[in-house]
Amino acid sequence: MMTIQPHRSERIQHHVPKQVLVDEFKTFLPSAAIITEPEGLKPFECDGLSAYHCLPWLVVLPETVAEVQQCVRCCWRHGVPIVARGAGTGLSGGALPLDNGVLLSLAKLNRILEIDSANRLARVEPGVRNLAISEAAARFGLYYAPDPSSQIACTIGGNIAENSGGVHCLKYGLTTHNILRMSIITMDGELVTIGSHGLDGPGLDLSAVLIGSEGMLGIVVEVSVKLLPIPEQVQVVLAAFDSIEKAGLAVSGIIAAGLMPAGLEMMDKATIKAAEDFIHAGYPDDAEAIVLCELDGSAVQVEEELKAAVALLSGGGAIDIRIAKSGEERKRLWAGRKAAFPAIGRLSPDYYCMDGTIPRRFLAKVLKGIAELSEHYGLKVANVFHAGDGNLHPLILYNADLPGELQKAERFGGDILELSIAVGGTISGEHGVGVEKINQMCMQFSAAELTQFHAVKLAFDEQGLLNPGKAVPSLHRCAEFGAVHIHRGQLPHPDLERF
Amino acid sequence: MMTIQPHRSERIQHHVPKQVLVDEFKTFLPSAAIITEPEGLKPFECDGLSAYHCLPWLVVLPETVAEVQQCVRCCWRHGVPIVARGAGTGLSGGALPLDNGVLLSLAKLNRILEIDSANRLARVEPGVRNLAISEAAARFGLYYAPDPSSQIACTIGGNIAENSGGVHCLKYGLTTHNILRMSIITMDGELVTIGSHGLDGPGLDLSAVLIGSEGMLGIVVEVSVKLLPIPEQVQVVLAAFDSIEKAGLAVSGIIAAGLMPAGLEMMDKATIKAAEDFIHAGYPDDAEAIVLCELDGSAVQVEEELKAAVALLSGGGAIDIRIAKSGEERKRLWAGRKAAFPAIGRLSPDYYCMDGTIPRRFLAKVLKGIAELSEHYGLKVANVFHAGDGNLHPLILYNADLPGELQKAERFGGDILELSIAVGGTISGEHGVGVEKINQMCMQFSAAELTQFHAVKLAFDEQGLLNPGKAVPSLHRCAEFGAVHIHRGQLPHPDLERF
Repeated sequence: MMTIQPHRSERIQHHVPKQVLVDEFKTFLPSAAIITEPEGLKPFECDGLSAYHCLPWLVVLPETVAEVQQCVRCCWRHGVPIVARGAGTGLSGGALPLDNGVLLSLAKLNRILEIDSANRLARVEPGVRNLAISEAAARFGLYYAPDPSSQIACTIGGNIAENSGGVHCLKYGLTTHNILRMSIITMDGELVTIGSHGLDGPGLDLSAVLIGSEGMLGIVVEVSVKLLPIPEQVQVVLAAFDSIEKAGLAVSGIIAAGLMPAGLEMMDKATIKAAEDFIHAGYPDDAEAIVLCELDGSAVQVEEELKAAVALLSGGGAIDIRIAKSGEERKRLWAGRKAAFPAIGRLSPDYYCMDGTIPRRFLAKVLKGIAELSEHYGLKVANVFHAGDGNLHPLILYNADLPGELQKAERFGGDILELSIAVGGTISGEHGVGVEKINQMCMQFSAAELTQFHAVKLAFDEQGLLNPGKAVPSLHRCAEFGAVHIHRGQLPHPDLERF
Repeated sequence: MMTIQPHRSERIQHHVPKQVLVDEFKTFLPSAAIITEPEGLKPFECDGLSAYHCLPWLVVLPETVAEVQQCVRCCWRHGVPIVARGAGTGLSGGALPLDNGVLLSLAKLNRILEIDSANRLARVEPGVRNLAISEAAARFGLYYAPDPSSQIACTIGGNIAENSGGVHCLKYGLTTHNILRMSIITMDGELVTIGSHGLDGPGLDLSAVLIGSEGMLGIVVEVSVKLLPIPEQVQVVLAAFDSIEKAGLAVSGIIAAGLMPAGLEMMDKATIKAAEDFIHAGYPDDAEAIVLCELDGSAVQVEEELKAAVALLSGGGAIDIRIAKSGEERKRLWAGRKAAFPAIGRLSPDYYCMDGTIPRRFLAKVLKGIAELSEHYGLKVANVFHAGDGNLHPLILYNADLPGELQKAERFGGDILELSIAVGGTISGEHGVGVEKINQMCMQFSAAELTQFHAVKLAFDEQGLLNPGKAVPSLHRCAEFGAVHIHRGQLPHPDLERF
C-alpha cells in the first residue's frame, strides 16, 4: 500500500491549527458530525482504489445544504482544502483524503425529495444511492438508467463526480446524459443552479464540465435525474467464439447494422474460466471469447432485434449461441459477467483494474499489445470489455507481498494506458482519473489543453482548494513526468512506438 | 429597425486604426478575403433577427484552420473584438456584428473531411451546412439527427454556437447531444481539442459549455458529429381537438405512457388557419388545436407505437384523427407545420417569434396568460409548439410601420419570457439568447450564477474579446434592467405575480 499526497506543485499549504477549525465547525454542527480521532478517521482513508491511502486531517458529516454551505465557507475563509466524498466506491482514488484537508462526506444528505412522474424526473440529495432512485421510481414504472457495478452502494453524487457508466451506458449513456439539473455550493460558498428541467436552458451549460470533474469545481447538494420507462421486455443472447478477433468483429457488425443493444459485453478466456469456476454460469469452457448481448424495449421490437443479433453473431462465426429462455437463465448468464472481478480476485492475491477506451477497430491490435506486455512484465492479465463502446478493463494479476510486484503492475498499467492513447483512445472509460491516472493525463493532453483546464478550474475555485492533486495534473508534474521519459532516452517499450 | 451595440459596460474599447489591421491580415489572407467597403459589409449587418442590425467594422473570410488562427492571433494582439458567423440564420442576434470589431465568417471552411461509418461519425469543418452532412452520410444509410427548420442553409458551426434543436430533438436531442469532438481556436490563438470519439474521455468535459455559448468562448474549426442509422419506417398521425387544454393533456399522456415520438408538435387555431390558407395541407378547419405525432424506427415497432398513440389521442378526446397513408400524405401533413412561420407572415406585415420552454403541465396556464397579454397590448398572437418538450413559439403579430408597435411587441415578448420563468421554465428553447433576450437573463439567473458564467468566460477569453454584449449580460446591465422594474414599483403586470 502506498501513502500518497499531491505533487508539491499541487499541494495547498496552510498553517491553520486543527482545533481552530473544529471550534468553528462546532458552532453549526453537532459534535458527532465532526471526526478527529484516528480510529474514526480510518474508514475514510481510501476509496475503492485501496492501494492508495491517507488518513484525513479531519472529517465532517453535514446533514443539510445549509450545513454544507457553512463548512465550505469556513474552509474558504481559512484557505483549507476540501475533498468531497460519497460512498467511497470510486476506483481511481478521486476521494483520497489529504493529510492537511477536510474530508466532507455527503453521505447524510440522502433524501429523495421528489419523484415527478409526469416530467419523468427525480429530485434527490447527493448521498442517495444509485439503486435507491430506481427503487423509489419503480411504482411509477420508471427507473434511472446508468448502473455502475457498485450501484447498490455508490451515491448519485459520486456518480456525478466520476461521470459513472455501467453495462447499459451503450444505449442509455453515462451519468452526464442522464442529469437534468444540479444545485452546487461553489468554493466561496455560493449556492448555484446548473442545468434545467427543460431540454435546453439559456446561459452557459456548465453541466458537462461539472459532471466528471471529480469534486474539483463545486459540491453538488441537489440533483434532478432523468427517469425512463422500465422496458416491457429484456432478452439476452450469449455467443462463444474460437478467437477474440472474431468476437471483436461480431461486436462491430452489430453496431454497424444499426442495432442498439442495451448492453454488449465481452470476456476473454482467462475471465471466462475464472467466472465459470466461481459462479458456474454455464459458459462454454472451450471458448476463446464470449459476447453477451442484451436487448430491451417492447416485446415485438426485442423479438425482431434478437433475430437480427443472432443472425449477425452466427454469421460472424460464433461456435455456440444461447438465448436465455427465462428471466432466471438471463440472470445466470449475466451473473458470470457481474462476478468477473471477484472471480479474478480468487486467482491472484491482488489485481489492478485498468480502464481505457479505444476505437473498436483497434481491439485486436491492443489485445496483442497487452499480451506482449504481459509476457514482458511476467504478470498475467484477464480482459473484460464494455465492447460496444470500446471500453476495456484489463485486470493485471500480481502479488503485493512480493517486493516490486505492485510497482511492476503499475508500470504495466501505465503502458496499457499509453497504448490506448497511441491508437487514438483515451485513458479513462468510466472510472475517472483521480490520483491513479494523473500522470498519464500529461500524455493525453497538450500543455495548451491542460492550461485551458486549469483556467476553468480557477473560474470555479480561485484558490484551488477543491480536491487538489486529482484529475488534472499541474504542468510542473507533467514536466517531471515527461522528463523521466526523456531521461531514459526512449519510451519504456520502443516496439510500441509503431502504434 | 434598430441599430444596437453592447451595453457600455460590455463594449470593448480600442484605438487600432482599421488600416493597420487590414495590412496585417493581407500578409496571410488574399485581398478578396478581406471586406472593408460598405456594399460588401452590408450582407453581414444582421442575422435572422433582422430587427437588429449594425454594419461590421471589417469582415474576414479565412479558408483554412491556420488562417483562422492567424486572424484570431492578430485581433488578440491588438485587443480587437471578434464576432464569429456561420450562415447567419440565427434568430436571436447572436451573430450581430460590432461597429468596432472583426466579423469572422467561417463559411469557407466547408469541407466534409471524413464519413467514418464503422464508428458512425462524420468529421467536418464548421461551415458545412447541416443538411449536407446527412446528404453525404446517406450512402452509408446514416444521417445527422438535429434538424432546425433552417437546415438547408444553417451551418454546423452555427448549430454549435446556438445549441440548435428541431422538430426531432424530443427523441434525438439537441446539438449538444450529437457532437462528439471539436477543435477550437481559443482567443489567444491556441488550437485545443474538446471531447473525444469515445463515449467518455478524461479531463474536464468542456463540450457542453462550449456548445450553446454563442461564440463567446472559442472559434470551432473542426467538428465530429454522431451519425444515426436512417429509420426503416416513419409514420405520422394528426389529431384535432376542440380545446387547446385537451390537446396539451393528450401530449402529456403520450409522454407519460412511455412512448417516445420522433416529433410531437402542436398548433393553435390562428396557426392552423394561417397554414391552411397558405398550404392547403388539409387540416380540419374547425379545430381549436392540432397535434402532429411522428413515430420512427423498425416497421413492427412503428406499427405498435402508432396503435398506442392513436388510442391515447382518441382517449384524450380528439375530434378527428388522420394517419398518413403514404409518404406523400405524410409530407403534406408536415408541410402545414413547416410553413407555419411564413404562413403567419402573410397575416401581418411583421411578426416577432418568441422561444420559451415551460414544464408541460403549465401549458394551459401560460396560454391563458399569453391570451390576456394579447388583449392588454392589442396585438394578435399565434402559437406553435414543440409540445413534447414544452418549447413554445408564440408569434406576436405587429406592424413596424405603425409608430410604437415594435416596442409594444418587444414588451409583450419580454412579458411572455418572464411568464415562462415564473412557472419554472426558461427564456430559451432552441434559438439562443443573443442580443434579443439578454435583459431577461437578468431575471433568469441570480447574480451568483451570472458571476459564475463570467468567470468561465474569462477562463477562455481573458480580455473578453469574443462576441461581447451577447448571451450573458454584465451585472451593470442587470442593475439597470432591474432598476427599471424597481422604479416602476411593480412588475409590468402585477396580475402575473400569482404565477
